[in-house]
Formats: sequence, C-alpha cells, structure tokens
Amino acid sequence: MTTLEEAKRLDAADELAGFRDRFVPITDPGVVAYLDGNSLGRPLRATAERLQELVADQWGARLIRSWEERWLELPERIGDELGRVALGAAPGQTIVADSTSVCLYKTLRAAAALRPGRDEIVTDSANFPTDRFLVESVAAELGHTVRWIEGGDVHPDDVAAVTGPRTAAVVLSHVDYRSAAIADLAGITRLVHDRGALTVWDLCHSVGSIPVELDANGADFAVGCTYKFLNAGPGAPAFLYVNSRHHAEFGQPITGWMGAADTFGMAEHYVPAPGIRRALSGTPPVLGMVGVQEGVALLAEAGIDRVRAKAVALGRWVLALADAWLVPLGFTVASPREDARRGGHVTLRHPDAERLSRVLIEHGVLIDFRRPDGIRVGLSPLTTGFTEVRAAVDRIRELAA
Amino acid sequence: MTTLEEAKRLDAADELAGFRDRFVPITDPGVVAYLDGNSLGRPLRATAERLQELVADQWGARLIRSWEERWLELPERIGDELGRVALGAAPGQTIVADSTSVCLYKTLRAAAALRPGRDEIVTDSANFPTDRFLVESVAAELGHTVRWIEGGDVHPDDVAAVTGPRTAAVVLSHVDYRSAAIADLAGITRLVHDRGALTVWDLCHSVGSIPVELDANGADFAVGCTYKFLNAGPGAPAFLYVNSRHHAEFGQPITGWMGAADTFGMAEHYVPAPGIRRALSGTPPVLGMVGVQEGVALLAEAGIDRVRAKAVALGRWVLALADAWLVPLGFTVASPREDARRGGHVTLRHPDAERLSRVLIEHGVLIDFRRPDGIRVGLSPLTTGFTEVRAAVDRIRELAA
Repeated sequence: MTTLEEAKRLDAADELAGFRDRFVPITDPGVVAYLDGNSLGRPLRATAERLQELVADQWGARLIRSWEERWLELPERIGDELGRVALGAAPGQTIVADSTSVCLYKTLRAAAALRPGRDEIVTDSANFPTDRFLVESVAAELGHTVRWIEGGDVHPDDVAAVTGPRTAAVVLSHVDYRSAAIADLAGITRLVHDRGALTVWDLCHSVGSIPVELDANGADFAVGCTYKFLNAGPGAPAFLYVNSRHHAEFGQPITGWMGAADTFGMAEHYVPAPGIRRALSGTPPVLGMVGVQEGVALLAEAGIDRVRAKAVALGRWVLALADAWLVPLGFTVASPREDARRGGHVTLRHPDAERLSRVLIEHGVLIDFRRPDGIRVGLSPLTTGFTEVRAAVDRIRELAA
Repeated sequence: MTTLEEAKRLDAADELAGFRDRFVPITDPGVVAYLDGNSLGRPLRATAERLQELVADQWGARLIRSWEERWLELPERIGDELGRVALGAAPGQTIVADSTSVCLYKTLRAAAALRPGRDEIVTDSANFPTDRFLVESVAAELGHTVRWIEGGDVHPDDVAAVTGPRTAAVVLSHVDYRSAAIADLAGITRLVHDRGALTVWDLCHSVGSIPVELDANGADFAVGCTYKFLNAGPGAPAFLYVNSRHHAEFGQPITGWMGAADTFGMAEHYVPAPGIRRALSGTPPVLGMVGVQEGVALLAEAGIDRVRAKAVALGRWVLALADAWLVPLGFTVASPREDARRGGHVTLRHPDAERLSRVLIEHGVLIDFRRPDGIRVGLSPLTTGFTEVRAAVDRIRELAA
C-alpha cells in the first residue's frame, strides 16, 4: 500500500502526469520534492516564453499602442476565462487586479455599503491574517463590530450562531489555509442570504484546486490569489468577483481612472464603468498578468475536475504514507480525512514542527511551516507526482526519527 | 537653428546618447519617433534578461525559498535606491507597492488621519483624473469637503487662497500632466505646513525626469508611477514615500499581512510594521519590480542631473522646431517656455489635435493626445535623440499642412 511499486503504479495511471513537462524544470539537484505549490506554484515554460514576447514584441515594438491593441482588455478577458474555467462564473463578473488584500478591502467595503443600517461583520478567528486584519480595520473605519466565529473549520451552524439582522457581511475562506478543511460554500451562502447579509469568499486556497461554483450558489463577492494553484508567479495579480445582480449598485472606494466609465475622457467627476470594470483602480499590471493567463490556459486544458480528482488521490496517498510512517513517530493529521472535506493540501502536526520544517527544507523537502505546529504538504496536481510525494514522506520519516 | 546639421551636432554632443543602446531596439520600421515615453517608457535589455533569470533561477529553481532569500526585501530595497537616485529621500521612507491609485488612496487616508478635526482636502481642478477622483471619494467617505484650486499650473498663491485651519491635506501633481508646468514643491510645501496641513505630492510626471528633493523640502507624503521615465514596464508597481517624522503615527486602511510587524507570525491582531513597511498590503509583485529595479539602476548610472539637463535641451529643441514649423500652421505651445518651469514633455495645442494625433500615430510619430486639444511630445532623455525629434516635428509639419 505504501510501496514504491504502488507509487509508480499511481504515476503511470495519472492522466495529468504529462502536464509536469509544461513547467520549467527544477534544476536544483538538492530538491527531493516541491510540496509548497500552495504557497508558490511553479513557473510554466509558456510564461517564460510569453514574457519575452511581451517585452520584445508588445512593449518594445508596439510600445504605447499595445494598451489599446491588447492590454486594456486583459483584466476582464483573463477574468472571464478564470471565471469559466475555475469559478463557475459567467462572463463579466470576474476581473484580475491588485493584490488579494486590496481586492478584499474593496469587496468588503462594497458589501458593507450595500447593507446600510447593518453594523456587524462576521469572520472566523482562524481565518488567514490578512482577512482578519482587514475585517478589523474596515469595521473600525465604518464603526462596525466584528463578530467572531471561533476556531476554523467553519460549519453553517457556526455562522448561524453569530449572524442576524445586524450582520452586513460574512467573510470566510473557502479552504482553510491551515487544515485544508473545505467550508460549505453553498450552505453558508444560503444561510447568510436568509439573514439578509452578503458573503465575501476568500478563494486563495481553492481556486485552481477544487471546483468553485459561485454563480450556482449565488455568491455575492469573492477574491483570491493566482500564485498558488494557478502558478501565475510571485506576487502575481489577484482577482475579484462581483455577482452581476450587484452590478447596478456596487461601488468601491479606490476610484482610480481605470475604473471610470471613460478612462481617457478625463471627466470632471468619477463616473464608474458599467459592470465589473469599476472594481479596477490603477493601471493593470501587464507583466504579472502573463502568468495568470498562462496558468488559467493550462488549467482549462487539464480541466478542474481532473485536477480535483488527482488532488484527492494525492491527499489519500499522503494520508496512507503518514499513517504508516509518521503517526508512529508522533505526528498527527490535522486535515479532514473525508475526501469531500479536504482541499489541496494535507497538514501534519508535530510538537517540534518549526525546527523540523527547517531541517526538511535544508534536505530538499520543500513544505511549509504554519504556526504553531503545522507542516503543510501542498499538492499541486499539475506538477506533483506520487513517487515524489513518497520520497518526501520517506525523507520526513528519516529526519524526524 | 533647425537644420539637420544642428540636430546631428546636438546628438554628437549628447553625453547620454549611448544609453539608447541599453534599450530593446524598436524593430517596427514604421516608427519615426517614440515620443510617448512619458506614458510608457521603453524596455531595457537588462529587464528582459533579468526576467528570464528570475523565472528560471529564482522562481523555477529556488522556488518558495526565494521569498526569504531575495524577494521579501525588494519593496524597501528598491524603494531606498529610488529615493536616493531620484527623490532626494534618505533610506527607509520610500517603498514600491501597488498602483499609483492605491498608493494615493493610502497616503491620502493616512494624511487625513494625522489631521483630526480638520475637514477639508485641497486639490487642483486640472489635476490628473485619478487624483481628483480619489480626493473626491476619500473626502466623501470621511465627510470632508474638497476645496478646488481652479485650472492647473498651480502657484503658491493659488494654494494660499484655499488653505486654512480646516485644511487637512493638499494633493497636487509636481509636474502637470497636460502642460508639463512644474509646481513649486518647496514653496507650496512650506505654505501648507504654515497652515498646519500636510502635502501629498503626485510625482508621476517628475520622477526620473527632474530631480525631486522630498527630504530637503520637508514633504510629507508622495506617490508616483514607474512606467514613464523609469521605464519599468506597463502597469509596473508604483511607489509611496512617507517622511520619517510621520512614521511613529501614520497608518493606512488596507492592513494586509505584508504590512504587519510579523508577517508570518499569524498574530491575533494587526500590529503595523515599524517604518515605511506598514504601507504594504498584499504580496509584492515580484515580476513587475524587475523593471523598476533595472530602471532605477540605469538612472543611477546616468545621473538625474544629466537626465534633467538633456530634458531641458530636448524641450528647447522642440520649442525651436515648433516655433519655426508648427506655429505658422496654427499650433500653439501650451508648456512653459522658461526652462526651470517646464518638465519632461512639451504640449502643443491645435484645434484639430484629436484627429491629427490619430494621423500622426498612423504615420509612426508616437505622441499622445490629451483632451481637449493637446498633443504631448514626451522627451525621455535616456532614449530620445535630437535627430529623432526633428524628424518627428518635420512629419507633424507635413501632415498638418
């Protein structure tokens, strides 16, 4: 069950195995396994090539003309494709922009403005720091109160307990960055709507890893990053989704020229662009968008359902190896064992995780440490193989013994 | 005075002429002259090369480890160098982040928060749209009033007329995006401080073109873009300056993890990083920063004083050619004729400027049009030559006749 033969059998049966060749090879011979694609996905060969073309042919040769010829439409064009391929979002609702933090600020302010008279924002005390920090600062600036759900792995009942007629918005992560637990996006969204409030979903750890169905579930707002499972590159621009039923009314406070109805009209006052484009502020980051475009294109080719199926299989494989080799050494599994509730990584806990993580990285097992005692094993179905995972867990066993 | 021989003499005497070879050549044979570097500077060869290295060696080989090894410090490291080379800013006050719009939002909110009890924000009705739009939206969210200076080319007297004990902040552009008029940064800053208010300077059209002396003049806040005279690339990240005397108190509302004191500490509440780093929000855009780093390095090599001297000479040359060839055809000069008051471009007005701009661009004279009737001739000392400019003005004469 944990043999090398089994690993090879799984790799041989893997429909997505060939996608690994589409990535820039890891030339560092010290790397045993890259299991941190949920922090930074690996670069696609196509991204490197497209960057060269962009510099030489678009920026270098067409110069300023490239804005009208190609670049101005990219935030919406790539957003639409990302929506189609990964988010279950019809065109015109998703746009590539800024960082996740800035997108979250914009959507949270927009959500609050759509619920005047309500003065509470709900989030989870185990949510990612940026989310918690932004909920607190937006609440402070609006004179709102934060209502905390305690402890992560949020269920609809937890949300029900703290939402009511004063709730303006509920800000939650679809997949927990520590445990990988998948929240019930459908059930929670329904419940929040029943209470008259709006949802802001952080999809950082789900986009490109598990299918997200924003339209079908009537989600209001969502944000996410592109540098994890979409492999778009370090600090690549984020994305933001606003359901079309809010387009007539929604606004955001960072009213730069790119979100105005007539960007080059130099109008006297700000008139927001129709639809999702009003979510933009400054000049779109063209170089950063190359990686997003290529990452989304590769995902379209692979198909999110096949990606998800392999993520589940990789997760099971890590659990089998961990149960056999690591649990006897004092590790515990912090991620859900039920496939349907586990996202694209598996977190192992160990009392000495911080030191051990450093040792593992030094020995080429590239995982990441999350306080207080979690070792996250990131599983990127387009690049991670079963033999690679086995070698990594074997090395963990050796180094932790 | 306008002869080809004179142009060649000027090119031969140009100390910066050799820098042109450091840029990716314009391979499009249809381009007569690129005079829009004040909208989008041309790419450096080094930027293309460094992008390849970054993808292969840092992102591709070192993977996630590059964050700690190199990337996390880039916003401050490049900011410090930009401050030294172009802004007259001591280290620790300048940081590369976001877009100009987002940086302007942050600094304006920060400035307003430092002046509680004051409820007016001053700007110029001819300021760049993003600046006016953001002043209006920040004023609206804070319940402040906007006090308008009418009409561009702002003098200290104009500022004096609308500032007083209710003024929290004054938001102005150092160089006017239409006329290229240089504002008296020193005099206006002094006057604003005398009234107890704070300055937010938009340096988009001055950074990398004219020396800016932020520290010496006691400026409070400044922002600017890097894709014009710094040649950092389309949508490259912006920068933000906060004078160190405000560091103990200043804050900004987009409290993402990268601005927190301990980014990976996953703290319970947001504690701002000491100093300028608290101006950050999301994950820094690494690919976009490559162009900033290379653009600043090239400027350091050329020296801002030599760049400025050549910009002045190029401006005089455009004026001489325009007076001889274009004024007789109905053009007027909208930029200051006094060298010390004219920034890095020259704007020509013509009743038929919009149509004419399209014709010029079709014929390879890449200028830009700014409503209602301005043709901006952008002068980038590191790439623009005197013969190039002469050929362009000659073509304008021919096409406008």
